[in-house]
Amino acid sequence: MSFILKKPISHSDIQDVPIGTSITSYGRISRISIMKKFWYLKIRTMYKDDITLIADKSIIKEKPSTYSAIKFEGIVSESPSGNREIKLTKVLYYSSFDSKDLLITPGMSSELLRGLESQRMLDRKYQYIFYIYPRLCDYLRALSKKIGMLEIRPPLTTFSDCEGGGEVFKIVSDIKDFYKRKAYLTVSSQVEEETATQRLSSHTYVFARSFRSDPSRTRFHVSEFDHYEPELVYVTLDQLMDVEEYIIKSLFSYVLEQKDIYDRLVYLKSPVADLKDWSDTKFARISYTDAIETLMMSGQEFQVKPYWGLDLGKEHERWLCEKHFKKPTFVYKYPSKIKSFYMRQCPKIVSVKFGILQVCEGVDLLMPGIGELCGGSTREYRYDVLLAQIKERGLDPKDYEEYLSLRKQGGIPTGGFGLGFDRLMMVITGTKSIRDVVPFPRYYGR
Amino acid sequence: MSFILKKPISHSDIQDVPIGTSITSYGRISRISIMKKFWYLKIRTMYKDDITLIADKSIIKEKPSTYSAIKFEGIVSESPSGNREIKLTKVLYYSSFDSKDLLITPGMSSELLRGLESQRMLDRKYQYIFYIYPRLCDYLRALSKKIGMLEIRPPLTTFSDCEGGGEVFKIVSDIKDFYKRKAYLTVSSQVEEETATQRLSSHTYVFARSFRSDPSRTRFHVSEFDHYEPELVYVTLDQLMDVEEYIIKSLFSYVLEQKDIYDRLVYLKSPVADLKDWSDTKFARISYTDAIETLMMSGQEFQVKPYWGLDLGKEHERWLCEKHFKKPTFVYKYPSKIKSFYMRQCPKIVSVKFGILQVCEGVDLLMPGIGELCGGSTREYRYDVLLAQIKERGLDPKDYEEYLSLRKQGGIPTGGFGLGFDRLMMVITGTKSIRDVVPFPRYYGR
Repeated sequence: MSFILKKPISHSDIQDVPIGTSITSYGRISRISIMKKFWYLKIRTMYKDDITLIADKSIIKEKPSTYSAIKFEGIVSESPSGNREIKLTKVLYYSSFDSKDLLITPGMSSELLRGLESQRMLDRKYQYIFYIYPRLCDYLRALSKKIGMLEIRPPLTTFSDCEGGGEVFKIVSDIKDFYKRKAYLTVSSQVEEETATQRLSSHTYVFARSFRSDPSRTRFHVSEFDHYEPELVYVTLDQLMDVEEYIIKSLFSYVLEQKDIYDRLVYLKSPVADLKDWSDTKFARISYTDAIETLMMSGQEFQVKPYWGLDLGKEHERWLCEKHFKKPTFVYKYPSKIKSFYMRQCPKIVSVKFGILQVCEGVDLLMPGIGELCGGSTREYRYDVLLAQIKERGLDPKDYEEYLSLRKQGGIPTGGFGLGFDRLMMVITGTKSIRDVVPFPRYYGR
Repeated sequence: MSFILKKPISHSDIQDVPIGTSITSYGRISRISIMKKFWYLKIRTMYKDDITLIADKSIIKEKPSTYSAIKFEGIVSESPSGNREIKLTKVLYYSSFDSKDLLITPGMSSELLRGLESQRMLDRKYQYIFYIYPRLCDYLRALSKKIGMLEIRPPLTTFSDCEGGGEVFKIVSDIKDFYKRKAYLTVSSQVEEETATQRLSSHTYVFARSFRSDPSRTRFHVSEFDHYEPELVYVTLDQLMDVEEYIIKSLFSYVLEQKDIYDRLVYLKSPVADLKDWSDTKFARISYTDAIETLMMSGQEFQVKPYWGLDLGKEHERWLCEKHFKKPTFVYKYPSKIKSFYMRQCPKIVSVKFGILQVCEGVDLLMPGIGELCGGSTREYRYDVLLAQIKERGLDPKDYEEYLSLRKQGGIPTGGFGLGFDRLMMVITGTKSIRDVVPFPRYYGR
């Protein structure tokens, strides 16, 4: 037994269908014109091209309204100019969309449309974005498996707020002590994923929701986002960058090669030429220390003057990848002090300019137009070094007992990174605001 | 460019590799035996079969411990009985697992292992379950697309607690008025999905996390679960059952056909013969009214005596599908009063036995060993009937304004169902407790 549900029919579907063939289909009416005793109804589908429906006024008596739903029977016919159309013979279902209820208007700004979350989905632009999103998710999952990673199902409820700083949402139940401890929404699945990676002795990835209670109102911030987090065993910093670069380039190539996606990207005015360039070129790689020197020598006026030890801001990140390298750029080996305790510590380095430096194997990927797209590192696998890092930051080793114990119990050196998938969707579709790449965005002040 | 990460090597991988070939690989040591001046180390992988590593005591001086991590170089050799083995030439990395830190023991009960969440992942049983889980997710997504549904990315943060009764978790931020309204964790993506289905005029599905603050301690309850929710346009109740049956049978057939999954199911003592039966047979379909009559006539002593209007309990559900039909069973057209307001209302029916009855197009799928696996319905698409249902239940129409408005704005008749994916994993893997099918389960009292 096989089972295929009917999608709305499109013009190209009946290109080669004999004239006179009878068809049952459905869709929304996107445009209406009148000619003599006929209605010409454009039926739009998010899947393929539009089709024209010709309805005798004896079948549809009153003027249909835009975005009305229709299910119909008809026969394939041909227009005088030789285009396939459908001549409507019967209306099986019709539900009108009263124009006074229609709040979206052609040419309305994204900002205004955002307030009309439900109706903006009638707009072709959003339909195309929401069409591309799952296609890209599927490809990313398939690619991850092809590379050799096992998908891990993480919990979104966590019992540690260590990682998130103040940026965590609390979970509260009306039922007293539902969980025995305080519960939070996850900001990253890294801790659980590292556990799985270690215990299973396998490359893994997580592709799940993460949450940040971050009161930023920029076009890059949502409070709920799709987080792609690979974790690889026995990986060096260079290999980690290789994998990261390979995955992102593969995604770029994929959307350019898939005609259905490519056509929609062109409609969305996506920077397809950039995606092509980036998928062909080797990403830039620069150490943090060299990046700081480059920024200092740039002659560029930054709001925050660069110095060794500075946590790079968006202005520095974007200058590096947009003005200097003009392509995606890895910055690696950051000062230990500005990065997380779990990153692998490097031997001290001596710089003529900056003196003796303590860096770690952290690596960020900067993307033109966006700034930081991925953050990652190899992980500190030496128990004593990890413990010292925790203490040095004034953290309580008790809160990290389980994490520390992984190092003692047949611990494996691993490394991984996190990619904000919604931001990647911005890059690929050329969408200005992250709030426009998902149907129901959640953000500060929503 | 292509990129494949190394998985641990298995016996079958080197079956045809010439003797003397040099190999670099890694893994965890699952068993150690000594013979003369050699260590025999079994390396286990969750992917394929085990391999034996032979290590000269001059290379590994102290006795290795179980579950230690090793990365090695070696050459392919042959045992006296003709089996391929690897003769170790170099240890590239070794990290011991001190036996005093090993808390899991062979034959330990699932209950005890659950308290050792991290270490139980060393056990082959869990490794196999966690291997099958993403394989099944991928298949379900691919199948849904093949059938013709678009994947919708739902928000997990919702602003309405209408649907969940008391069973919702609240989301709280330290930042004052992070969201302008009260925020909750979603119990079902149905509302947002119906919106998308309507606006996009497309069959859709959601496969995402849902949360229930339900203080049940049974082996069927977790507070965080994977929820598969298709929503189909212009679907009748019969078609909805057809699709549901097709999807579930396809999943059963898939796990039986895929050798890697099948082999692991056999190891897990999954009821593969039942899965085979169920994938070949037509599921039973019985109306609620007939089901009640059958229960009343059964001669079976139930804790709660069946009567028309009763919300079926697990004892009734399981008797119907396990004792009576002995296969998966749809029960459809429930009394309107015991089902949700959004289900499509049927014309009144007259029963000789029960009188005049008001039922709706709700349908549950009962699964042997589990009880309810799916709940669904066609949706009430008539504005006035929907409004009356809302009022009749004492609900405030204002809370449902957006949902109601979909019916007025070119509303399409739709129908859908929700499947608890973790419960389906219990059925397929033959796992007794839902807490054992995911690596980090969340539940009441955790």
